[in-house]
Amino acid sequence: MSTEDKAKATKPRRLKDISEWHKTMDIAIIGFGGAGACAAIEAKDAGADVTIFELSSASGGSTAMSSAEIYMGGNGGTRVQKACGYDDSTENMYNYLKLCQGEQGDDNKIRAYCEGSLGHFDWLVDKGVPFKDTEFKERAIMVTTDDGLLYTGNEKVWPFNEVATPVPRGHNLYVDGDNGGPLFMKIMTDNVEKRGVNVEYETRALTLIQDEDGVVHGIVIRQNQKELNVRTHKGVILCAGGFVMNEAMLKRYAPMLSRCNAPTGNPGDDGAGILMGMGAGGAAINMHEGLTTLPFYPPPSLTKGIFVNSAGQRFINEDCYHSRVGNYCLKQPGDRIYLIFSADDIGNYQNSNYMGADIAGTGETVAELESELGLPELSLQQTVEFYNHYAEKGEDPKFHKIPQWLTPIKGPYAALDCTLGRGAMYSMFTLGGLDTLPTGEVLTGEREVIKGLYAAGRTTAGMPRTGDGYASGMSVGDVSFFGRWAGRTVAAAENLS
Amino acid sequence: MSTEDKAKATKPRRLKDISEWHKTMDIAIIGFGGAGACAAIEAKDAGADVTIFELSSASGGSTAMSSAEIYMGGNGGTRVQKACGYDDSTENMYNYLKLCQGEQGDDNKIRAYCEGSLGHFDWLVDKGVPFKDTEFKERAIMVTTDDGLLYTGNEKVWPFNEVATPVPRGHNLYVDGDNGGPLFMKIMTDNVEKRGVNVEYETRALTLIQDEDGVVHGIVIRQNQKELNVRTHKGVILCAGGFVMNEAMLKRYAPMLSRCNAPTGNPGDDGAGILMGMGAGGAAINMHEGLTTLPFYPPPSLTKGIFVNSAGQRFINEDCYHSRVGNYCLKQPGDRIYLIFSADDIGNYQNSNYMGADIAGTGETVAELESELGLPELSLQQTVEFYNHYAEKGEDPKFHKIPQWLTPIKGPYAALDCTLGRGAMYSMFTLGGLDTLPTGEVLTGEREVIKGLYAAGRTTAGMPRTGDGYASGMSVGDVSFFGRWAGRTVAAAENLS
Repeated sequence: MSTEDKAKATKPRRLKDISEWHKTMDIAIIGFGGAGACAAIEAKDAGADVTIFELSSASGGSTAMSSAEIYMGGNGGTRVQKACGYDDSTENMYNYLKLCQGEQGDDNKIRAYCEGSLGHFDWLVDKGVPFKDTEFKERAIMVTTDDGLLYTGNEKVWPFNEVATPVPRGHNLYVDGDNGGPLFMKIMTDNVEKRGVNVEYETRALTLIQDEDGVVHGIVIRQNQKELNVRTHKGVILCAGGFVMNEAMLKRYAPMLSRCNAPTGNPGDDGAGILMGMGAGGAAINMHEGLTTLPFYPPPSLTKGIFVNSAGQRFINEDCYHSRVGNYCLKQPGDRIYLIFSADDIGNYQNSNYMGADIAGTGETVAELESELGLPELSLQQTVEFYNHYAEKGEDPKFHKIPQWLTPIKGPYAALDCTLGRGAMYSMFTLGGLDTLPTGEVLTGEREVIKGLYAAGRTTAGMPRTGDGYASGMSVGDVSFFGRWAGRTVAAAENLS
Repeated sequence: MSTEDKAKATKPRRLKDISEWHKTMDIAIIGFGGAGACAAIEAKDAGADVTIFELSSASGGSTAMSSAEIYMGGNGGTRVQKACGYDDSTENMYNYLKLCQGEQGDDNKIRAYCEGSLGHFDWLVDKGVPFKDTEFKERAIMVTTDDGLLYTGNEKVWPFNEVATPVPRGHNLYVDGDNGGPLFMKIMTDNVEKRGVNVEYETRALTLIQDEDGVVHGIVIRQNQKELNVRTHKGVILCAGGFVMNEAMLKRYAPMLSRCNAPTGNPGDDGAGILMGMGAGGAAINMHEGLTTLPFYPPPSLTKGIFVNSAGQRFINEDCYHSRVGNYCLKQPGDRIYLIFSADDIGNYQNSNYMGADIAGTGETVAELESELGLPELSLQQTVEFYNHYAEKGEDPKFHKIPQWLTPIKGPYAALDCTLGRGAMYSMFTLGGLDTLPTGEVLTGEREVIKGLYAAGRTTAGMPRTGDGYASGMSVGDVSFFGRWAGRTVAAAENLS
């Protein structure tokens, strides 16, 4: 096969050009991560004939690499929330998520996610996902115990605390250490296998098969170096991840993310699913957005510090979730980001921290530190003076940090160098992708449904839409919730052939 | 015709379904604004048979609504630059534009634009576009005299002055008042007409006609309530503007722009050109970006003021071009933006300003103004104290405003309310669109050329890519430069039918 003949993701094959079908099924699911697994289980339970095609040699996807916290609540509270003493209304959850997703939030997805959240919890438990009825109360990037519930977003802090009552919604799997992802995918894989869903590994999806009217009838795959035509009677579900591993796409679509040094995902997050959808007429939206994060705690004591930019000015309430802080760091003018704190608050930073930032300077006085950091003379001094003046009173009139973390910063002082490109880890993944209905149906730029084509997970622009409002558990929550829905939708669809 | 049968921009008609061709030509150009006009002139001069289809009853597009400054330079300088005493190297222009366009800059477009800029100037002059060899030296949003040259971007200011020698490149047409746009389009329309290019007004382009291999062979149009099939032997050039008038698209693709209150464009900027390109397999990129602007001068004396956010903190060097300032205003946390200045500097604000912001407060002391504005006590006082301390010495270590505008702010003090949604005008237009080669060829998400399909102007992601680095004249410059190139490319293409 010459290079010219090579299948292009963005150039679907025409149905009329297919002379031989190598495989036939109701539903082909592309990708065996969280979204693909959940779609397969639901579709199979609805009686459909399902095959999952997975690029690698095993299930898992990026879900298995994650902590697999799952963001759930509302409806009076999940079993875990209730056991931990929390009441959570659907409206409260909705108000919170609405603010998180910004102008580009998809109200139908947010609403559906909140309303269906308790049912989703029950479904997961029914499938064998274990949650312990205990709360992890520390401020942490991830749970290192087996506790079942924790705050994973900005629920307690400004401005989110002005629109919704803070409730923890991050559900952590009942397993020691940061092993939620592998366990979640093991359980889902067991569920897929025991249902007899056909899974074919080491299979690359190349391009969709589409008729002249735009209806998707299958997909071209490559197995053992052979191209095979797969006919789908009901539809193809793209669950192939995002595009965090595709540098060229990041630069064109998500310039801010392309500046980060730590892409989070598996090698299959190369945008192929999104590109295939685009080729079939699907619209890729919200492509500039992603989760970026600067994991500056633990230790939580560093939250008592203040972030400053190259003007020596604060720019965020430091009690925000690390991803919101990271996003704001990336948006600062100038080329320096420092975390300034009382040296006493460094705690076990060197052993517990994921950020990898070096000490940029220390000083007995703020003036000394300011000079060592090369910040404009008086700039940091003013900032600390103002901060301390109000922290003394438990106030933060500029950025509204909550009293829990408001303590005057005292000497000796220290600073961590969180400047991009100087060692600190800025991790990220993409939140843009195919525009879909909550049902998983892929939409054109005019929001017309493309028959036979479905998508879920990071191949789509899902419920989470902004890095500023992200909370851990939103992505695996979205992946599993809307993955299931896509599976149900396509199983219930009438046959196209 | 039932609603179901209605042509959808994103759903191209199949060539095989076309039973009758109502019109046949080499090239169909969609839109008679700046890009369409320049494409038509070049294509016709190369011997092609060209028709322009225009939605409205007259030529003009959004170019005619603009000031039609044109950003040109490099190559030793244009005639006007030289006459005004400026030397401008291509490398200098390139270095500047490269920084302006950010991570998402298209190096091939930037380079080609700089290298071809002098030739473009000469071409425009040859077509009859008049430029006077004089410089307008005031800091202004637009020229109100007939002078030919002015600074229209951030050339003189930080950080741009660190990578390139400041040279003015905004070329203003030789006409009194802000009438460059109408004159530019009158001249281009005359050129189109005297060449005998066929123009059909009141014609809406509905959707492209594409064969099974993805090659574009024409376009479906509506004239007098009839759908007509137009066959193009060489190609279709989409010059149909951006999507600033499409609220739903703004929300999905460009959430920041959707918050502005003054979309700048004509009603045809509804995204139809971009959607048609997407439907044919083209990738829309950089869709989140746009020019947003807060036209806070004239009078230029207000540049001596300082912008503060709801934390009472500065965030930008106020000597930046108004569009960069506007973009930064939109990115501030909190919900207040004030311009603080010495009351003496208000000059003729009430008569000369386009911004429409009300006086938010005044005070004999900074403390009094701070209190009146509801800013945190001490916040504005610290900000002004720091600013004045350094302004006294002609320095601005935080934001690097140049000495020309650095004067301590003195009482009595005043503040303009530039808060979004409280009266100040935030205008905007889109800078995202179809990914194209400099030649105008439209690309898929894998950057494969779609045969028979071309685009230029705001239907594309052109040379200008960011609001942070925008300069007046970049859009009309891009529109005319790459519009011409698209015209030449398609005229030289071999016949597809």
